[in-house]
Amino acid sequence: MAAKANGKEKVVLAYSGGLDTSVMVKWLQLEKGLDVVAICGNVGQESQDLGWVEQKAYDMGAMYSQAIDMRSEYAEKILTKAIAANGMYEDTYPLLSALSRPLIVKHLVDIAHKTGASYIAHGCTGKGNDQVRFETCIHALDPSIKILAPVREWDLHTREEEMEWAAAHDVPVPTTAAKPYSIDDNLWGRAIECGVLEDPWNEPPEDIWTMTASPEEAPDEPEEIVVGFEAGKPVSLNGKPMALLPLIVQMNKVCGKHGIGRIDMIEDRVVGIKSHECYECPASLTLIKMHHSLETMCLDGDTLKYKHMVDQQWSTTVYDGLWFSQLKQALDAFVQNTQKFVTGEVKAKLYKGSATVTGVKSAYSLYEYSLATYGEGDTFDRTASKGFIDIHSLPVKTWSGKQGPSAKGVSEKSDTQAQRLSA
Amino acid sequence: MAAKANGKEKVVLAYSGGLDTSVMVKWLQLEKGLDVVAICGNVGQESQDLGWVEQKAYDMGAMYSQAIDMRSEYAEKILTKAIAANGMYEDTYPLLSALSRPLIVKHLVDIAHKTGASYIAHGCTGKGNDQVRFETCIHALDPSIKILAPVREWDLHTREEEMEWAAAHDVPVPTTAAKPYSIDDNLWGRAIECGVLEDPWNEPPEDIWTMTASPEEAPDEPEEIVVGFEAGKPVSLNGKPMALLPLIVQMNKVCGKHGIGRIDMIEDRVVGIKSHECYECPASLTLIKMHHSLETMCLDGDTLKYKHMVDQQWSTTVYDGLWFSQLKQALDAFVQNTQKFVTGEVKAKLYKGSATVTGVKSAYSLYEYSLATYGEGDTFDRTASKGFIDIHSLPVKTWSGKQGPSAKGVSEKSDTQAQRLSA
Amino acid sequence: MAAKANGKEKVVLAYSGGLDTSVMVKWLQLEKGLDVVAICGNVGQESQDLGWVEQKAYDMGAMYSQAIDMRSEYAEKILTKAIAANGMYEDTYPLLSALSRPLIVKHLVDIAHKTGASYIAHGCTGKGNDQVRFETCIHALDPSIKILAPVREWDLHTREEEMEWAAAHDVPVPTTAAKPYSIDDNLWGRAIECGVLEDPWNEPPEDIWTMTASPEEAPDEPEEIVVGFEAGKPVSLNGKPMALLPLIVQMNKVCGKHGIGRIDMIEDRVVGIKSHECYECPASLTLIKMHHSLETMCLDGDTLKYKHMVDQQWSTTVYDGLWFSQLKQALDAFVQNTQKFVTGEVKAKLYKGSATVTGVKSAYSLYEYSLATYGEGDTFDRTASKGFIDIHSLPVKTWSGKQGPSAKGVSEKSDTQAQRLSA
Amino acid sequence: MAAKANGKEKVVLAYSGGLDTSVMVKWLQLEKGLDVVAICGNVGQESQDLGWVEQKAYDMGAMYSQAIDMRSEYAEKILTKAIAANGMYEDTYPLLSALSRPLIVKHLVDIAHKTGASYIAHGCTGKGNDQVRFETCIHALDPSIKILAPVREWDLHTREEEMEWAAAHDVPVPTTAAKPYSIDDNLWGRAIECGVLEDPWNEPPEDIWTMTASPEEAPDEPEEIVVGFEAGKPVSLNGKPMALLPLIVQMNKVCGKHGIGRIDMIEDRVVGIKSHECYECPASLTLIKMHHSLETMCLDGDTLKYKHMVDQQWSTTVYDGLWFSQLKQALDAFVQNTQKFVTGEVKAKLYKGSATVTGVKSAYSLYEYSLATYGEGDTFDRTASKGFIDIHSLPVKTWSGKQGPSAKGVSEKSDTQAQRLSA
Repeated sequence: MAAKANGKEKVVLAYSGGLDTSVMVKWLQLEKGLDVVAICGNVGQESQDLGWVEQKAYDMGAMYSQAIDMRSEYAEKILTKAIAANGMYEDTYPLLSALSRPLIVKHLVDIAHKTGASYIAHGCTGKGNDQVRFETCIHALDPSIKILAPVREWDLHTREEEMEWAAAHDVPVPTTAAKPYSIDDNLWGRAIECGVLEDPWNEPPEDIWTMTASPEEAPDEPEEIVVGFEAGKPVSLNGKPMALLPLIVQMNKVCGKHGIGRIDMIEDRVVGIKSHECYECPASLTLIKMHHSLETMCLDGDTLKYKHMVDQQWSTTVYDGLWFSQLKQALDAFVQNTQKFVTGEVKAKLYKGSATVTGVKSAYSLYEYSLATYGEGDTFDRTASKGFIDIHSLPVKTWSGKQGPSAKGVSEKSDTQAQRLSA
Repeated sequence: MAAKANGKEKVVLAYSGGLDTSVMVKWLQLEKGLDVVAICGNVGQESQDLGWVEQKAYDMGAMYSQAIDMRSEYAEKILTKAIAANGMYEDTYPLLSALSRPLIVKHLVDIAHKTGASYIAHGCTGKGNDQVRFETCIHALDPSIKILAPVREWDLHTREEEMEWAAAHDVPVPTTAAKPYSIDDNLWGRAIECGVLEDPWNEPPEDIWTMTASPEEAPDEPEEIVVGFEAGKPVSLNGKPMALLPLIVQMNKVCGKHGIGRIDMIEDRVVGIKSHECYECPASLTLIKMHHSLETMCLDGDTLKYKHMVDQQWSTTVYDGLWFSQLKQALDAFVQNTQKFVTGEVKAKLYKGSATVTGVKSAYSLYEYSLATYGEGDTFDRTASKGFIDIHSLPVKTWSGKQGPSAKGVSEKSDTQAQRLSA
Repeated sequence: MAAKANGKEKVVLAYSGGLDTSVMVKWLQLEKGLDVVAICGNVGQESQDLGWVEQKAYDMGAMYSQAIDMRSEYAEKILTKAIAANGMYEDTYPLLSALSRPLIVKHLVDIAHKTGASYIAHGCTGKGNDQVRFETCIHALDPSIKILAPVREWDLHTREEEMEWAAAHDVPVPTTAAKPYSIDDNLWGRAIECGVLEDPWNEPPEDIWTMTASPEEAPDEPEEIVVGFEAGKPVSLNGKPMALLPLIVQMNKVCGKHGIGRIDMIEDRVVGIKSHECYECPASLTLIKMHHSLETMCLDGDTLKYKHMVDQQWSTTVYDGLWFSQLKQALDAFVQNTQKFVTGEVKAKLYKGSATVTGVKSAYSLYEYSLATYGEGDTFDRTASKGFIDIHSLPVKTWSGKQGPSAKGVSEKSDTQAQRLSA
Repeated sequence: MAAKANGKEKVVLAYSGGLDTSVMVKWLQLEKGLDVVAICGNVGQESQDLGWVEQKAYDMGAMYSQAIDMRSEYAEKILTKAIAANGMYEDTYPLLSALSRPLIVKHLVDIAHKTGASYIAHGCTGKGNDQVRFETCIHALDPSIKILAPVREWDLHTREEEMEWAAAHDVPVPTTAAKPYSIDDNLWGRAIECGVLEDPWNEPPEDIWTMTASPEEAPDEPEEIVVGFEAGKPVSLNGKPMALLPLIVQMNKVCGKHGIGRIDMIEDRVVGIKSHECYECPASLTLIKMHHSLETMCLDGDTLKYKHMVDQQWSTTVYDGLWFSQLKQALDAFVQNTQKFVTGEVKAKLYKGSATVTGVKSAYSLYEYSLATYGEGDTFDRTASKGFIDIHSLPVKTWSGKQGPSAKGVSEKSDTQAQRLSA
């Protein structure tokens, strides 16, 4: 790629092909005097044929334009880690936007280095999470790159003003009415924003959903699927070995068909506000659920409990835009270490909005029939129990006599549990 | 109640009316030379009319026998706390057996004090959790009481041996075949143990379930319910104020009808083994889900995340039999403090095995439409975002240049995230 | 107090009497057209006679001026909680500035309400923690109050410019050279900032310290002190009952004399940077150490470990300016619950820079001689140990055979601990 | 080594050369009919010349005896990890016994495999931590090995009975009085147990200490030392590159001379009791303190705080004998990942019982003079602060108006912080 020899500085723009970022291609040239490099990342959006996007940016005067297929890299390098960490923000949201941003930014920074651009621009609004993630990831990968966030800076405050500006500067204006919903989607799911959602007492309208059938409309027959995992990573579907990308694509279809993956939640944004969000996440929710089931078989109780806490921190860290950070790397190291033996198969039944795990097996299972059974073949040594309990309860025994329910003279000054119970 | 003046020591037995504990009433007299006080706690078992149990114990020679209705106390003193703490062991099991034990033990100890009994006996097996909970709670309430666990001690190793001993000692022997499943149930749900469950690849057979319809057999029409909460406690159902006990009974019916509450999991017991467990928990799962939804509206992000960690510790502590303990009391204090404003209403749709929250409202909601909206009335100050992001990302910016992706000379010696990503 | 009837809005200024805030009294009148209410909080600064400060603000044209003695309230309402939570940020800094801010802000807001002021102004710089704490606490207590931070806003960038402006506006200019160190001090210790500290390889110069003797110059004879605690709060010194305020004043003297309390650390500020800080904290470090020793006797192992984690979160929350917040209240509830029986006496030896705990006793001690002793009177049941260990080690036993050191065929694919150990 | 072909089973005994384990050599032959393989591990005990121990075991009839020098392996494989994790149980005890056990056990198991022994025996008492660690580590490395703990099993309950048995079976009986203290020591420090310690109000007598001078007797001149670290591991002392083993030996001398490293604490044992323990740990305490200081420079704030929590879990896990476990491996992975850039030098002043860090430097320092300075060269953007604070305080602002200090009508039903403060 040859850089124009016009002495202008360059800006790499995260370009989607929509109205906002198309206006930006022009605006960055006119208002900022920059040459624009427009980059569109394909991370598995519904409209996956992004060829037209490249041309559209050129039409707006971009010096260079490229749509990059990041789907395999997204699955292999990012989603693999998200599955291993059961990545769910506030135990509910599978982080779909938070996961795609670091990958897109990595490519933007690479392109900036290749083209000698000194700026990166993005189209995020000024009150969301994505501006935080974009900018934090850029700062992490190259703090010398300057950032432009035109939406926070320009004077185009309403859609009308923006369309007016577009018309006046030869930016194609959509002829249809604006879609009522703002969407961000990729392999890992789809986020929907719309005005009607802003009252959390309202159930979302049916027409916001495109990846999932309504549970009521879903097939009347359950469907069973089996996913194989190797070291925490999904590697087969219904016995057929598959790369993670096609496996996720397939899972989105089959789980979506059964109405699985709708999320309607109140969420705490990085920028200090609560928002009401809807997501549909057929593959991600189901794969994380199945992965976690396998962990209950392959991780011991202490590890499982501690990892749950680490998983939550991982999710918050990624949500907050800190994918590239010291803490995230260390949490990944913990998580990866636990995954060595998370290998096996998980069976699930899909039916009317639910994915229910109905079977788990692993060559590395820590579930021991001979210890657990009450039937023949029982190898558990019951005589150990008394000694165990005696020592397990020794601290409360001591506490009871000194400070607790059986302490003399204490009850008057203290509202112990037992007393409240018997009140 | 008058204690027999025969010079014998007394034992208070946790009596269920079943074969095991009926044999124990006799065995404790014959083998241990003790007078038996048989106490049966009604915590909402399916077979709630426990009048016959009192007589049965007398028939076996008990010096005193009583069935105590603990249901209201269970709801008000125990389950209220479990809901507030979203009590779920390993994020899956709503602790139904773990919650009833402390209450039963409290009554056993009270009766022991009233009757001057120096022993308490229980019918738990030697490899389960319940022996740990019973004994730890007894030690906590009165360390001077001695404990007998006949099942760990006697020679009756098989059901056959037990029935033979029963027949020889005038204990009525069940004429029907033994039920294949061992059940523990109460208001908060039902635990099922059976041999066929011991292979986690097997789906549980349909006939183990009694509180829940099969999702496939559940009504084809969804049903909407609304639960009102005050300071974290459910206080109304579908607009009608109710005490917690009838509310739970009602919820078990309506949620069970829609196939909600089946759990099939691998669980880590206190005694160091994994077991495969099935539970049905229509009311408990649904109430905890609804309560947590209200918390996402009424607790701020920091509190919500920290409380999730506290909730997990609460659940593990209760699971391990440490209801009466210093740590449990302090965790309760944290939890209770957070519940002051968890007041409002939650709407849920019940359908084919799923309870889906479809609406939340609260007079104390921290969700602010005016901050969250992208439409008119937006009061969020977007100019704050740049400053926020600059400081939020300052640590990774510094890290990047010294140790991270943009550090010179570091890449050779370190596998940073970015490098692995681009590999 | 009568508000001037001149139609101007009022600002409550956190006034110290120094050059910066004296200039502000004038600047807020001239540049902002506000009437100034100057409030100086006495939280135990070295220069405790603050009478002159009141007059000085009037001299600058303040409409009202008051020095408020907050010392007892600081000790009773704030420091009591800090001791109970062993408040130490990053396990090192006893939070002295972070603790005084909420109390000062509470008074500023009260005064604003009483005087009908719509603004509060503070003299904090634009890169420190204190601006964050002041403003966050104001927002928490009354979000409708507007905040002015003149130092972030005005054009007086150097001390020279500031002195020039002062001279031109009849603000008394210090005739002596500026002190090289910027100090913040109160009952809980003293923070020192100076240029020479900015290289963390440099040992701080001796002349920055005023509360503590150099360990080398401290007395050659150790001194023993005994502090009595009740429910986590210090209530006596050397057997003499004392209120917390005089107790802290006394402890600062005696511990300072022995060179105790110097801290030289690298600290992570709220605003995303590391700074090199020096503190001297004779009373606070010693009291927290003694309090924690008593906790090791009065809290059981589980509570002690969990509380340590809660204490750290408490400290970070307070450091970040979130004293008035939902999470802080819930953490306080946990902490307070644990303190009910932290009652007893602690003995310490002060010598040449160290406070060493040499004795602890409590009527509620959980340390049981009869359990711990290896000598006569031993009541520990050794036969319990085998059963305990068998169950304690059951998970690793199972793990070993399936995934760990004794698993067949695993070693080739896994770098287990044991293998690395033996490498 | 040739195994005796006498058809007897073999036992590997952890042999110290003392009375207890010497009696065991005989007792295992006579009472258990086993051939004894006596293994003595040199992990840096004061009495480091262990040649005589080999012979002594042969004298008692051992079929094979060996003293193994494990010191370098201990330093390189175990203590390196302990330093990286700042290994301190309950933030006080540097785990000296807990760290040596896994290494000794690894060798015992290796010897058992080489000799075909089916038993391992140890000399630990029945109420301490070491029995738990020995047995748990053996179970983890080879669950098929059977364990003998003669002290828990034999009839020799007093020292007198033991000496009588010894005399009767040709075991040499110590001619001097029994030492009043029971000692366990190695490179990482020295644990002292004695009767007088059992009252925690008593200061330990001076004669229990052998590695440390009394602070009062220590040199009147401070001494400065500099330790160099590479990736978290100490690699040089005072500028001279050294392997970890000699570095620790040297540090024990120099720090001990200055009276550094005495610990007097109440500790929560694995077996559920509190005990009063004394340790002296000159090298370990000082190295961990210096290492942690370097971390405050090389780890960012988030990582530092999270790692502190991981370090505590690491320490508890190791204390509990779970060195070989899934969780321990995962925690190690986290810790190791954080150490990549913990490289630099730390300066400390040793004086009269204290090691005070007086300087830290690192090529990877995250402390940035240009961000931290208030003087010339300041690059911090103060304008960012306002935006940061506005968003940082947004949650409490919202909370205040709905549930907190500024919520109308709330004050009557809630005791908010502000209200309690102003009470």
